[in-house]
Amino acid sequence: MSEQQKPTLFTCLSPALLNLYEVKDSIIVIIDVLRATSTIATALHNKAKCVIPVDSVQECVRLGNQMDAITAGERDGQIAEGLQHGNSPFEYTEAFAGGKTIVLTTTNGTKLLHMALQQGASNIITGSFVNISSVCNYLVAQNKNVILGCAAWKDKVNIEDTIFAGAVIERIGERFNSNCDASYGALNLYQQAKPNIIEYIKPTSHYKRLAGFNLHADMEFCFTNDAANTLPIYNDGRLTAYKH
Amino acid sequence: MSEQQKPTLFTCLSPALLNLYEVKDSIIVIIDVLRATSTIATALHNKAKCVIPVDSVQECVRLGNQMDAITAGERDGQIAEGLQHGNSPFEYTEAFAGGKTIVLTTTNGTKLLHMALQQGASNIITGSFVNISSVCNYLVAQNKNVILGCAAWKDKVNIEDTIFAGAVIERIGERFNSNCDASYGALNLYQQAKPNIIEYIKPTSHYKRLAGFNLHADMEFCFTNDAANTLPIYNDGRLTAYKH
Repeated sequence: MSEQQKPTLFTCLSPALLNLYEVKDSIIVIIDVLRATSTIATALHNKAKCVIPVDSVQECVRLGNQMDAITAGERDGQIAEGLQHGNSPFEYTEAFAGGKTIVLTTTNGTKLLHMALQQGASNIITGSFVNISSVCNYLVAQNKNVILGCAAWKDKVNIEDTIFAGAVIERIGERFNSNCDASYGALNLYQQAKPNIIEYIKPTSHYKRLAGFNLHADMEFCFTNDAANTLPIYNDGRLTAYKH
Repeated sequence: MSEQQKPTLFTCLSPALLNLYEVKDSIIVIIDVLRATSTIATALHNKAKCVIPVDSVQECVRLGNQMDAITAGERDGQIAEGLQHGNSPFEYTEAFAGGKTIVLTTTNGTKLLHMALQQGASNIITGSFVNISSVCNYLVAQNKNVILGCAAWKDKVNIEDTIFAGAVIERIGERFNSNCDASYGALNLYQQAKPNIIEYIKPTSHYKRLAGFNLHADMEFCFTNDAANTLPIYNDGRLTAYKH
């Protein structure tokens, strides 16, 4: 395939930078490795019916009551007051989540997803190391322009989402045109991190935050390639498992 | 010095993220390695009287006429129409710039400087590899909170400004408290780049843009440590050489 014919790929390191990219008619991958997009993949992998992302705790409670759904979410890394469940992938076993509707609100990932929707993204999927192969296969198969959208932390760039973008670029970057320093930086950081991601992220702010809540096992899981290799895709207000 | 007593250091990767940081009462280092902050350091090192950064080409022309000053600046990497001089450090020799006032407008650096001013920064200096020792000495001596402000490219994160932040952090990061993933990423990228910065930045967008204008020598200069080791400091609308 000639350079001309390849679709483009950009990495957006923070929701506050999303308006710099051509979101309209692109596929956007929502990346919130710790832990929203890892947990969403896990819930759908374990046969949850769907995950409905909502912006606020109030909306989560309201919709949960209305639909008899599981209400889940966190604020600042802990279960949000008024909700039944948090944002740990380990909560969403098949026994618990199978067949269920989950209404979820998170600090950063939900916000970015709704921004992408408002800006006219053609396809919205969610990605994390736990479903990296599904994400890459889908992006290659679609052959459209891609934006890797890091959820970040309250708009501040974070390392864990950045290195996931880098991991995707390492696998499939050559199939895209990419004149994007953020992508180059993400790839380089990922290649440094790859030999031991957990060690690499120990100095980062979110590692320290979650380690403070004793969530080391969550983090180990969130960085495990293909541990819940199902692709969440967003349509009509809900994320469901993508069927090939 | 205990951790408590250390001032903080943050890296802001794009002007569009500046509002996330406590600019008020901090020192901000304006970083626009290719080429504004390299050129400003060079002009002052070569005894220009001062550099007046302005936002627009019109304002540059107006002020230049009024003050009988050199008008200089670029848009998208080339001399802006209506101005006398561009943004190459090689133009600002002592024979040319000595004793002169230079009114300068650039795509990204000037904009960030004015944002920092509006947000109440206590001290504004400019940094590049060409004056890295002066920058680091000043930051250590002041013992205040620091924001390393990357000018980026039209708000998109770039590698050259990011790795300069990393170079500063490598030298003096331990003297500050820094719970900042952007700083950690910048340091890691710089450490990758350090053995051969020019090779490292070849895949980046601004390298390609300037190489297209045959500005390789400019870039070599802009990445040379202490090639113009004078510290520009902003006061009352102008940048002058800092006197110890």
